[in-house]
This record gives sequence, C-alpha cells and structure tokens, in this order.
Amino acid sequence: MFNRKLVFTALLAASTSMTAVADTVETERHKVTVSTFADGFTNPWGMTFLPDNSVLVTERSGDLYWVSENGQYREKISGTPEVVAKSQGGLLDVTIDPDFESNQWVYISYSEPAQDGGKGNSTAVMRAKLVDKAFTDKEVIFRQAPKYESNAHFGSRLVFSPEGHLFVTLGDRYSRMDDAQTLDNHHGKVVRIWPDGSIPEDNPFVGQDNALDEIWSYGHRNVQGADIHPDTGELWTVEHGPQGGDEVNIPKAGKNYGWPEITYGVDYGGAIISEDAVKEGMEQPFYYWVPSIATAGATFYTGDAFPDWKGDFFVAALKSSLVARLDLYEGRMMHEERLFEDTIDARIRDINQGPDGFLYLLTDESNGSILQIKPAD
Amino acid sequence: MFNRKLVFTALLAASTSMTAVADTVETERHKVTVSTFADGFTNPWGMTFLPDNSVLVTERSGDLYWVSENGQYREKISGTPEVVAKSQGGLLDVTIDPDFESNQWVYISYSEPAQDGGKGNSTAVMRAKLVDKAFTDKEVIFRQAPKYESNAHFGSRLVFSPEGHLFVTLGDRYSRMDDAQTLDNHHGKVVRIWPDGSIPEDNPFVGQDNALDEIWSYGHRNVQGADIHPDTGELWTVEHGPQGGDEVNIPKAGKNYGWPEITYGVDYGGAIISEDAVKEGMEQPFYYWVPSIATAGATFYTGDAFPDWKGDFFVAALKSSLVARLDLYEGRMMHEERLFEDTIDARIRDINQGPDGFLYLLTDESNGSILQIKPAD
Repeated sequence: MFNRKLVFTALLAASTSMTAVADTVETERHKVTVSTFADGFTNPWGMTFLPDNSVLVTERSGDLYWVSENGQYREKISGTPEVVAKSQGGLLDVTIDPDFESNQWVYISYSEPAQDGGKGNSTAVMRAKLVDKAFTDKEVIFRQAPKYESNAHFGSRLVFSPEGHLFVTLGDRYSRMDDAQTLDNHHGKVVRIWPDGSIPEDNPFVGQDNALDEIWSYGHRNVQGADIHPDTGELWTVEHGPQGGDEVNIPKAGKNYGWPEITYGVDYGGAIISEDAVKEGMEQPFYYWVPSIATAGATFYTGDAFPDWKGDFFVAALKSSLVARLDLYEGRMMHEERLFEDTIDARIRDINQGPDGFLYLLTDESNGSILQIKPAD
Repeated sequence: MFNRKLVFTALLAASTSMTAVADTVETERHKVTVSTFADGFTNPWGMTFLPDNSVLVTERSGDLYWVSENGQYREKISGTPEVVAKSQGGLLDVTIDPDFESNQWVYISYSEPAQDGGKGNSTAVMRAKLVDKAFTDKEVIFRQAPKYESNAHFGSRLVFSPEGHLFVTLGDRYSRMDDAQTLDNHHGKVVRIWPDGSIPEDNPFVGQDNALDEIWSYGHRNVQGADIHPDTGELWTVEHGPQGGDEVNIPKAGKNYGWPEITYGVDYGGAIISEDAVKEGMEQPFYYWVPSIATAGATFYTGDAFPDWKGDFFVAALKSSLVARLDLYEGRMMHEERLFEDTIDARIRDINQGPDGFLYLLTDESNGSILQIKPAD
C-alpha cells in the first residue's frame, strides 16, 4: 500500500507543510488547540473520514487525495472523473457509504460537463469502489438537470440519512434562480436518492406531473452545508445566501424554502431581490445571518472530546474565517458563538468530526490545510 | 389640570431639552427615526403609558413624573413613598392596572428601607390611586423578604398576566446569591400576586413547608426586563447576568432557572461562579448573551407601525447602548439584530410600546430622555 510514490509525496508534504506550534484558543466552553493536520492542498473543498481516521480530501481542480490518519502521508486517487474546474465549479464533496468497510463505495459530487460536448454543466454524483487508491466500478448516480452554462452555485454536500437515503444539496446556478420555485428542474433543490441512484418511492413529488422525482425540497439558493441531526435523524442544511441572508434550514419533504420569492438578504451590490421575508406557503429558516458570514460546510458535534459542545451545530464560514457554533438545547437555538475569528485567516470551506472526536476544518486556499481542533489539556 | 407649576415646568423642559433633528436609521427591516420625546430626567428607570398616550416615568432618586402625550409638559406626582436611593436602589418600575380607566390604580416598585429603622432594605411594591397627579389610597402590596443591607440587585419589573395576576421580578441582592436556590426567601425570585397583594391559590409553592407562597419561579440573578407574550400569554423575562450570561427566560410555575448553580457567565473580574451551565432539574434559558450586553427592560412589539417587527421581542441594553431585536417565528429564535448601537450613546434602561404603536426608549443618564422610534416615511 505504501508505494514509492506515496513516500515521496509524504516527504515533500512533511518538509513544507507542518506548523511547529499549535495555537491555543479560549472559547466560551472549551480551551482548544488549532494545529495543522495536513496542508499543501490546492483549494480543497470537501473531506470525509474513513473508519481508520485517514481522510479523503477533494481539490476543486479535480484531484481526490487519501491522507493517512496522522496527516503525514497522502496519495492521489486515480480514476476520478473529468470536472469543469472553473470559478465555483470542480470536484466538490466526498462521502463514504455507511457500509464502506464491506462495500468500499465512495461518493463524490462535481461539476460535470455536458455529455454532448456543449457548453453546459451541472452537478453530478458519482459512486465508485475505492480499491488500492483507485476508483473502480464507477457509476454516475445523479445528474442535475438541465445542464446550464454557468460557473456558479453548484451546491453541494452529500449526506446519508439513517434509513440509507443519499441527500444531495444543490445550487440554483445563479442566473437560474427563478427555477428554484418550479419543480421541473433540479436548480435550487435538495434531492433524495438511493445510493444506486434509484428513486425512493415515498419521495414527495413521485407521480406528480411536471415535477422531478428526485426532489426532496425546493426554493433553495446554494446549499453548501448539510448534516443529519444525531437525535432526530432529520436533515439540516446550511444555505449560502445572498448579501445578508445565509440560512440554516431543516428541509422537510416537499416544502418550499422560499428562494428567491422570500429572503432576508439583498443581491451582492445591494439590489433588492424581494421585499418579502415571509410568505404564506413558504418555510422560514431555523436561523439566519444578517450580515452574511458566507456559510459553507457544517456538522453536528457528537463526540466526547468536547463534552460542552455535544449536540451543537457547527457552521464553517468563508468570508469571516470563522466557525459559528449554534448552541442548541432540545432543538432550540439558544446562542451563537463565533470561533477562531482571531485565530484563523483563511476561508473555511468544510468542517467534520473525526472518528477520534476531534474537529477538523478544511481551508479553501491555494495552500489549503486540514486544521485539527483538540482539547488544550 | 394644567396649573401654573406645570406650565413653568413645561416651559423649562421645552427650552432645554428638545432635539431639533431626528436621526434616521436603516435597520434590517424598517427605516426609522430616533428623536427625543422628552428629556431632563435624572436617571429615569421605568415608564408606562396611560391610555391617552401620556406617560408615567420614574426617576431612581424617588420622583414619579407624568409627561403629556406630546412630551412637552410634565408634572411631579405627589405622595410617592420614601425610597433607598443608593447605587442600584431607588424608585424603579411603574405600571398601571389593566382597568386603570375605571379604578386609577398605579403600581410602583422601589427599594424600601427597613421598617424598624435598621439598615436593611428590599424591593417593595406599592399601589395607589392616581387622582389629580397625586397618590391616594396607598397600599404596600408586596415586600421582598428578608430585608438585607445591600445596594444592588433589586430587580424589578411589574407586569400583569392576561388573568390579572401581577408578576414582580426580583434580584438576588448580589451578596445573597445563594438564596436564589432556597424557597424561604424572595431573593432571586419571580413572584406572582393578586393586585391587592393576596396570594393566588394555585401558586406553585402554596402550602409547602419552608417555601414562601408568593414565589412563581426561582434561581434568578437580577431580572430587570419582563413582558407577556402576546399570543401565548406566558411571562418572558430578561435577566441581567454576570459577566457573560445575560438571559431571556420563559419562567414556568415552580421551575428553577439555576442561578448561581449554573450560568453561562463568570463574575465581574473573571472569577468562576460555577463550572456548570447545564444541570438536571434546572431550566436552560430561551436565549443568552456571551459577552453580556447588560440587559434591562424588554417588550414584545404588537403594533402596526412596524409590520415586520410584529411579534418580535425587544431587549434594552445598558453597557452597549443598544436594543436587541429577537426575530421570533412560531416561538423560535431565528435571528438577533442589534439596533441603535451607532446612533444612541446612552444606557437604555427600558423600552415600551406606546398606544400609538411607536417604540419608546428610556435612557438612564443624569440627563435622561424618552426617545421615540417612528417609521421614517
């Protein structure tokens, strides 16, 4: 497994990337250290832990890396698909099958070029078996329809429900924002499929005319964060909103989350998108940010390393280089704490909990890092 | 009614106190103006509107004023009681009977000296009929027990429940904080009485040994804000916490709100009060602030002047010269907006909605004002 190429890569990484000293940060409930677990990634976008605490990391340009459980070694996964690596598009999220140890399925989302050689693109989901650091048995299990020429708002996060559905969170492709309100397309939708791409029979619009069967919820802008609530099993999403209007939602089957008919934000530059923030038949967010923090990935914390953070929802932010901790109690939002604003100077694209119970951040920079958050004592 | 003394006072006020120009403030949902409705008050603490939009205002030093509905005229109410006007103590809140128009009852809370001439004091509630700008038929309907020598943490707000109970919110007297956890005293309690001071039979501790019958809820620090939720009829309170740990609570009968056993704050200066923020058998806040904003009065907005603020909870803050708007939706906390941080440079002690649907702020300064918040257009 540790071949010559891997060792070379690892030595290169070790010589250029490790920070010697961890920063200690006093947060409201825990004193923590922030240290570099691995770096040298080019605009990494998504990550997921394997059961042995090693990590899969995507780079937006199209490469997928395996990183060893101590962060010291890495290897490029071969056989990943062609992506449209422009602006916001490229290789995006990665997750593993709930039964990965027995079936080796890995799922990736990415901006896929039009099949006919045209200029359009859209978010697709591929699954493949990860064998000896290579993708095999590749299957495209979802394609966002229609393909459209835009380099913006691809979503996307991949999360499994406790029942084994795969949720794929999508974007509105920016200039197609109005599509988020109609059901004949996948723009501005959260979709729910089975891991092989088939449609769950109880999806809310199955059998409805002019509605796509994959749709779970609609009226979204650009959903880049998602996790399953550890107690309720419900999907929670984080939506990168316009200027002032990032949202946390708990998308329910068939519900309309309002974009762009209602929003708490305005367009970049200040143009009015809608005068309304509330409308009959449209759902209100669970929580929203004005001004925006530029939300990205999100995770519930369920580990034992930080007892006072258990059950809280952590949201990574790009613009403000911070992680928002939403202190939840019995499903209620009690308090927001902003972590690492003064410690980290980087766009934080994703956040995950490792099997070790520590938190890991992914910085979307030209020299991007995986940062490890541990208890200070 | 407008006697010579009143006119003199009014002219004096008019000549010294009116600001010529209103500030316009762009908030997230409404463009508003902030202007001086009346000023020249010495550390005003509480206010309440009469049905004709005139106002009763307390000064902590002991005086109670009537202010005309246009803010131009004022008159001192005679016959108010002696108060202990030291540090945080003095004449505090004022409210009127739900049937004021027929019965003229006015209720005030204040720091009352010990009856035996000793050094102790505590928060008392008097009611009196307001007739020709004088208090008549005075009755002390509640006395916080025991009297204790401290100039701090008196509470207090007075609010009527929809069923006609009077809630009195109290403080822990600072050095008696541990009393907040025992029921044989009124320190750190919310009490519920009838307007004549008698005890509602269904109060939670009636008939229990070593528990005072007036107690509604306990484990509070210093509750200086309170209002009734316009839809649920429930009491909502705002508790001035230690350093980091101001709270909104929805106190339920007989429940323990945890102070000082649990808190999200530390003592002024940083000393640990408790390592715990959560404990079995103790209630969590609805919302809390870390760092503190130094909360004071609070009100639900129910008017028509600001449609997008309807149902929201507004909390006045001293230290940060701001009003926190808690954007509520179906009982959930969706967002906090901080208003007037850059507009008002004064400790905001109380906030009320006028019968005209505008919001009014009371600034606790040596030249304190009533500020009027109106739609800008």
